[in-house]
Amino acid sequence: SILESPEGTRLGGEKRRVTIMMSDLRGFTSIGERLPAENVLSMINIYLETMTEIILKYQGTIDEFIGDAILVIFGAPILREDDALRAAACAVEMQLAMKQVNARNNQKGYPPVAQGIGINTGDLVVGNIGSEKRSKYGVVGSNVNLTSRIESYTVGGQILISETTLEACGQILRIDDKMQVMPKGVKNPITIYELGGIGGRFNLFMPEKEKTNLPKLKKNLP
Amino acid sequence: SILESPEGTRLGGEKRRVTIMMSDLRGFTSIGERLPAENVLSMINIYLETMTEIILKYQGTIDEFIGDAILVIFGAPILREDDALRAAACAVEMQLAMKQVNARNNQKGYPPVAQGIGINTGDLVVGNIGSEKRSKYGVVGSNVNLTSRIESYTVGGQILISETTLEACGQILRIDDKMQVMPKGVKNPITIYELGGIGGRFNLFMPEKEKTNLPKLKKNLP
Repeated sequence: SILESPEGTRLGGEKRRVTIMMSDLRGFTSIGERLPAENVLSMINIYLETMTEIILKYQGTIDEFIGDAILVIFGAPILREDDALRAAACAVEMQLAMKQVNARNNQKGYPPVAQGIGINTGDLVVGNIGSEKRSKYGVVGSNVNLTSRIESYTVGGQILISETTLEACGQILRIDDKMQVMPKGVKNPITIYELGGIGGRFNLFMPEKEKTNLPKLKKNLP
Repeated sequence: SILESPEGTRLGGEKRRVTIMMSDLRGFTSIGERLPAENVLSMINIYLETMTEIILKYQGTIDEFIGDAILVIFGAPILREDDALRAAACAVEMQLAMKQVNARNNQKGYPPVAQGIGINTGDLVVGNIGSEKRSKYGVVGSNVNLTSRIESYTVGGQILISETTLEACGQILRIDDKMQVMPKGVKNPITIYELGGIGGRFNLFMPEKEKTNLPKLKKNLP
């Protein structure tokens, strides 16, 4: 398993600064309710297969699949200097890969889907969680909840990152927008940033956003 | 693994009516922030160990540990007539077992903790979720989200169940209270019920609730 490592099996838990990524298919639960069960699983698995490849390429640790959601840790079991950068680059590549996901969906006659991704950097307790009968290498802490809440502000196609992730990454990121939000469990409003791309050795960019939210007029030429 | 079974490996997914249970340690995330990392994991593991034993006894399928939360399915991979009843009985026994959990916490000098449990009965898609590189037997559907939201209304020591679970169980349950709530993602308010015990062959009851929320006066006798 990708979670097995000498560090991962250390007893007792350890607090460390990691970068947490949470993604899901926005609105998929209600799309899924209207589809046959085998199509629901097939769609989720097309999505998870594509994303797993990319997450492993960026050395992210998949903590969990929860339905169509993925919880990924960068920095545990193995801590690396560029954890936040790899998380950001991974997220951009994941969004770019939605084109392939939807091409495969289209081939099978499934509707298109869109992904939201939230990223946050902060302290977590990492270690083996569970009992003798069932345990896993996992993470605990309010920064997991915060990441999930940041992700919940996304619309399909968006990556939102916390201020701490922005600081950990620095100038290399292209930020397209920012907003103030007040997630449950947080005392003061926080600023979150919409990630549009990452330069340097990663050089991965999403298409620039339209400057306006107004729908474009279609030209009806004969 | 308890999740392995011939049925569990069937490809393609299947829609079926299951009973879903979600539990967690209420307010533990903020307690955990103030404790050393090794105590946080040790406390979670004391809790998960005790609960895992009980869940397996009632033939629940542990879908996931998510930090201190547990997601359990009754009815997959193996469907049984009394899925909802075993879920209800399991929840009551889990709450009664918090006495042992806190005795163990006390022995180690840890603060006491309290558990909330939500139960809901409904259709889910079940099957193998993930990719070739990483997959698990899991569940997908809005009834998972609804269960998590029902659980979020609990205070420590409480079990809240949906109307569908109440109907699936029938007269055998002791219901101590009910309330109307409007969880996110639901169109109309739903009624949820506070479970106080289960009769019949289970015969498990929590202490009757105090009839008043007023704090008791302490007698200051010399």
